[in-house]
Amino acid sequence: MSDQRTELSQLGEFRLIQRLTEQFELKNPQSVLGVGDDAALLDAAGKQVVVSTDLLTEGVHFDLSYVPLKHLGYKSVIANLSDIAAMNALPAQILVSIGVSNRFSIEALDELYAGMKKACDVYGVDLVGGDTTSSASGLIISITVVGYADAGEVVRRNTAAEKDLIVVTGDLGAAYMGLQILEREKAVYQDSPSIQPDLSGNDYILQRQLLPEARVDVVKSLKELGVRPSSMIDISDGLSSELLHLATGSNVGLVLYEEKIPIDHTTFQAARDFDLDPTTCALNGGEDYELLFTIAQDDYDNIRNHPDFTVIGYTTDAASGYQLIAKNGHVSQLTAQGWQHLNVGD
Amino acid sequence: MSDQRTELSQLGEFRLIQRLTEQFELKNPQSVLGVGDDAALLDAAGKQVVVSTDLLTEGVHFDLSYVPLKHLGYKSVIANLSDIAAMNALPAQILVSIGVSNRFSIEALDELYAGMKKACDVYGVDLVGGDTTSSASGLIISITVVGYADAGEVVRRNTAAEKDLIVVTGDLGAAYMGLQILEREKAVYQDSPSIQPDLSGNDYILQRQLLPEARVDVVKSLKELGVRPSSMIDISDGLSSELLHLATGSNVGLVLYEEKIPIDHTTFQAARDFDLDPTTCALNGGEDYELLFTIAQDDYDNIRNHPDFTVIGYTTDAASGYQLIAKNGHVSQLTAQGWQHLNVGD
Repeated sequence: MSDQRTELSQLGEFRLIQRLTEQFELKNPQSVLGVGDDAALLDAAGKQVVVSTDLLTEGVHFDLSYVPLKHLGYKSVIANLSDIAAMNALPAQILVSIGVSNRFSIEALDELYAGMKKACDVYGVDLVGGDTTSSASGLIISITVVGYADAGEVVRRNTAAEKDLIVVTGDLGAAYMGLQILEREKAVYQDSPSIQPDLSGNDYILQRQLLPEARVDVVKSLKELGVRPSSMIDISDGLSSELLHLATGSNVGLVLYEEKIPIDHTTFQAARDFDLDPTTCALNGGEDYELLFTIAQDDYDNIRNHPDFTVIGYTTDAASGYQLIAKNGHVSQLTAQGWQHLNVGD
Repeated sequence: MSDQRTELSQLGEFRLIQRLTEQFELKNPQSVLGVGDDAALLDAAGKQVVVSTDLLTEGVHFDLSYVPLKHLGYKSVIANLSDIAAMNALPAQILVSIGVSNRFSIEALDELYAGMKKACDVYGVDLVGGDTTSSASGLIISITVVGYADAGEVVRRNTAAEKDLIVVTGDLGAAYMGLQILEREKAVYQDSPSIQPDLSGNDYILQRQLLPEARVDVVKSLKELGVRPSSMIDISDGLSSELLHLATGSNVGLVLYEEKIPIDHTTFQAARDFDLDPTTCALNGGEDYELLFTIAQDDYDNIRNHPDFTVIGYTTDAASGYQLIAKNGHVSQLTAQGWQHLNVGD
């Protein structure tokens, strides 16, 4: 980041938007008109349109004392792209609104938007609109994402059938453990600012927390494999709560095998170092942005060789409830803990 | 409003969203799937899609000491619908994200959403998604609106031609004067809480501030009249700044006649009472949400009998600049003051 500090008041709102968005180019044929008018103009070209929106507030969703603004920009886009992937659709456009206090310089916002641009470039997504305004305190980021799918391709979260297989992508719990390490090092730093943070050996889990990816590739893989999931949701709040959303919405029960839950060895080791149960971290840690989906048993042969797909259980009739089979064979009821974003006050 | 106070913590995020959105029904054929999944699903049915988003923060865009939450809900939707109308498109869906601190009860949010529902009902718009989260301080409202237009119908702000007529809808400056009255009565109340606010005789301008309307009707009127404006923008920040956006974007100059600017007599009187120049209020006061558009001279006969359309000037070559012709014939250069939303700090 440059050392220069330019105050927001030195640019008007109009010129600020211009500065922040001029690096973005329209890449998608559906993006007819981007930033600069009363609204963006999109051409769905016969496809169905999928739209989602997220609101992130400083102190609730992110802590700028250890999250670089560029990473925050990247991650805030990723979280939205993940919602579109979870509908089995491909994201194409975002609209970004930010609320900022005078604490932030223009250079700081440049960093934030550089991260957003990186995500747009990696995922082939266009920034087509937004709003830039003041906030009485801290940073607010609101992102709306637009995606497209052919009619009949979209997969909902409440359409799982009984006896479907439950599949998860990638591995779980790493983003949560990355957060634990960042918070530990923040606490150490606050006590003794001269001590360098000890982040060694944790590259993978730190990256999962700071620079997660959206599984847009999975949407493409499923299409190539000829598999249309019977239901799908993204794992933003933790496996447990997403499984329960999917099962209650679909009016099915489920059986989940603890031993099947994919956990990376560095996540496992970090959890042990923190005296945490790795399975609990995978079940309740958020922000992994992996996809959770169900498929008919007949589709098993189509997905079995995919290196990123793990079958972790199956659906049952609703009356059987939500069963977690522990490694030792013990059966317990799955409960959602997830992340609670409604706990802070004025 | 009911006197009951239920804390946000008594409901989880999932149940809160359910409670706030369950009164909303999908009315538009383009709304395939609304709230409750990872994203909303829309069917453009061959039309082009127009999307806009706004971010409103407490203390910057609204003051809850004199704005009832229900009115705020209504107005925040209106501001977005106006952006779609300004593209000559018809709004059909909104996504609403809110960030709230513990200061707000669930009943307060019910009021906010009741106002939003009223706007959705009046304008035939569907709530199809959003996000509900915490804010460290105050209320944050982010709304995204989706609208539709046939290909070729959309009107941009930067496509005015030289020698076009400049037309404005309704009247201007009333919302600004409504704000002055509300702020005066707030100051009186803070000094002497026993004195009742004096709002008599100002119904129209107070309504223009508290419960403005979006000129979606104008989009329909223009279609009926067979007129496609050469450019269009909505007046959210004041006539001056919107005129300059339109003229600079289109690379034209303009001549604006002060005597033609439509000002309601109650606005005029209120401005006089505050020792303000009514024209200055109309030029620089924001939040009128009227439409400003240009038409080819040949279209004049088509719009001349519309009771809500006023020709206020015409465009010229860019070199002639932006001329304001005062009632006394004096010529000055038009400058934008508008509203500045980037002035507050931490």
